[in-house]
Amino acid sequence: MSDYRDFYRGRKVLVTGALGFIGSNLSRTLADLGASVLAVDSLLPDYGGNLFNLAGYEDRVRINIADVRGHGMAYLVKGQDVLFNLAGQVSHIDSMTDPFTDLEINCRSQLSILEALREANPEARIVYAGTRQIYGKPMRLPVDETHLLNPTDVNGINKISGEMYHLVYHSVYGIRASSLRLTNTYGPRQLIRHNRQGFIGWFVRQVVLGEEIQLFGDGTQRRDFDYVDDVVDAFLRAGATDAADGQVFNLGGDEAVSLLELTRLMIEVAGRGSYRLVPFPPERKRIDIGDFHADTGKIRATLGWAPRVGLRDGLTRTIEYYLQNREHYL
Amino acid sequence: MSDYRDFYRGRKVLVTGALGFIGSNLSRTLADLGASVLAVDSLLPDYGGNLFNLAGYEDRVRINIADVRGHGMAYLVKGQDVLFNLAGQVSHIDSMTDPFTDLEINCRSQLSILEALREANPEARIVYAGTRQIYGKPMRLPVDETHLLNPTDVNGINKISGEMYHLVYHSVYGIRASSLRLTNTYGPRQLIRHNRQGFIGWFVRQVVLGEEIQLFGDGTQRRDFDYVDDVVDAFLRAGATDAADGQVFNLGGDEAVSLLELTRLMIEVAGRGSYRLVPFPPERKRIDIGDFHADTGKIRATLGWAPRVGLRDGLTRTIEYYLQNREHYL
Repeated sequence: MSDYRDFYRGRKVLVTGALGFIGSNLSRTLADLGASVLAVDSLLPDYGGNLFNLAGYEDRVRINIADVRGHGMAYLVKGQDVLFNLAGQVSHIDSMTDPFTDLEINCRSQLSILEALREANPEARIVYAGTRQIYGKPMRLPVDETHLLNPTDVNGINKISGEMYHLVYHSVYGIRASSLRLTNTYGPRQLIRHNRQGFIGWFVRQVVLGEEIQLFGDGTQRRDFDYVDDVVDAFLRAGATDAADGQVFNLGGDEAVSLLELTRLMIEVAGRGSYRLVPFPPERKRIDIGDFHADTGKIRATLGWAPRVGLRDGLTRTIEYYLQNREHYL
Repeated sequence: MSDYRDFYRGRKVLVTGALGFIGSNLSRTLADLGASVLAVDSLLPDYGGNLFNLAGYEDRVRINIADVRGHGMAYLVKGQDVLFNLAGQVSHIDSMTDPFTDLEINCRSQLSILEALREANPEARIVYAGTRQIYGKPMRLPVDETHLLNPTDVNGINKISGEMYHLVYHSVYGIRASSLRLTNTYGPRQLIRHNRQGFIGWFVRQVVLGEEIQLFGDGTQRRDFDYVDDVVDAFLRAGATDAADGQVFNLGGDEAVSLLELTRLMIEVAGRGSYRLVPFPPERKRIDIGDFHADTGKIRATLGWAPRVGLRDGLTRTIEYYLQNREHYL
């Protein structure tokens, strides 16, 4: 299990969504490990793709702007050893106001990528960025991978399809696919310009600007959080390990933390910002899932993964990054 | 519960997939009950739509040929009291050879219909034709509605999306949607021209033609079966009952029957045909789900439904129908 980082030296690796938050952090690490990285991103406005996310790596990563909805994936996937499939529409709010675009990106594009693999490169491994959002409002805590899927919005439904396509292409065609069900991820290079991609990026923005965070409800909803480096580590492990093929794995934090605690810690670490409790807007309340905490026993046992970066440390690094690079994210 | 049939007198009802197998049987019954039926069907070749299925009802049912993938649904849904949403691509085999068409029909079209309802007729009730195929290979028998969803093919995945869209449009927008998860349904007006829509229609065809049924494997796989009149009865109940809103219900037979027993009974009832055991073709084995038997406790308790037509009786009526009308189905 200690060799999974060495595995990437000299490997050809394609990352979709590579200019986005997690994709760019992953691409940078892969380049550092000696992989030959093909970074594919559509740079669709408002989706999180940002050329600055690969700043300093322009010579070591090949950037290819392409929309995964379009043709051309069959060419791009050829000869790759590993695909990290992170392209997606991630806003739950947008999936309700424009469900068809969410469908195109999170369903049709996934089929296109898998069909391209099946035809042009059936030996490659592919790791999909799934989400804990597909569980919906938990019926029991912590949530393990056998928990019923009961999503609260169109995005959650389409992310189920995207994941299940990968699993069926594994069982029917032998494509070496796996999925990581990500929980709330935070860290450098996340979109913080608008508040439609989850609350963490938005809270970071408010703190960096020294503004007031509006916390919905009473702030007692508990969630778990992963620092982006830990999520990158999980992708690296899944992409290098045979035992991952055909499997889904929860990611998750070591502990569940209330949004109020998170907010206070963020303000403390940054030394600026404030918060105020406000009533839940109805369109958000309807798709809110309440408390969530993942059971990460499976990925710990199978891939040896565990989160390493504590919340205080991770938030410190995150806020430092945005304070230094705010002009590229605001 | 005894009034659910009276409920339809004078009601405006739209049926999608109304020239198909279950849709046509439902439309005929609705017309018999005094409903004003708008029968929408695309008549896509090979999908099961057949104008003869509404023979004798042309004056009592308004037939509107339209593809649910296209525009126009917003106009058609206006003023309807109940929608029975049965349009779909139902071939598991086709969903693997052409996954994008399956996506268009089973996902995008469902979103279109629900968006049309939300905009033009949010008070209507809608009942979706789901499928037990979404459970995949059962982990326990009988299978109740809390069983994990683990589909074996693209069709199963897209049928999950179709159903979940209905449930999310219920929870978020209050659309009065429910889903019936159908098991193997048989009876008059089913497509029997090719074998890509499940085995029953194909077996009926072979028996009607006096030909040899090829039974995959050893024929010991056990399944449950519903005669189409019982399925129509379930739709009528769900479409007339407030308690159905937001719910999914399994349908199922009273007992699990092996495919070998089914085949022998079919041959006995018809007085013709024969069978032979042959090895499973690999592309079918990969998506086969083995034994299946639904737990129907929920629909029995909530809607008072139970299957009434036994297998021998149903098969007798079915084969009689095709012997009399074979020229319209072969």
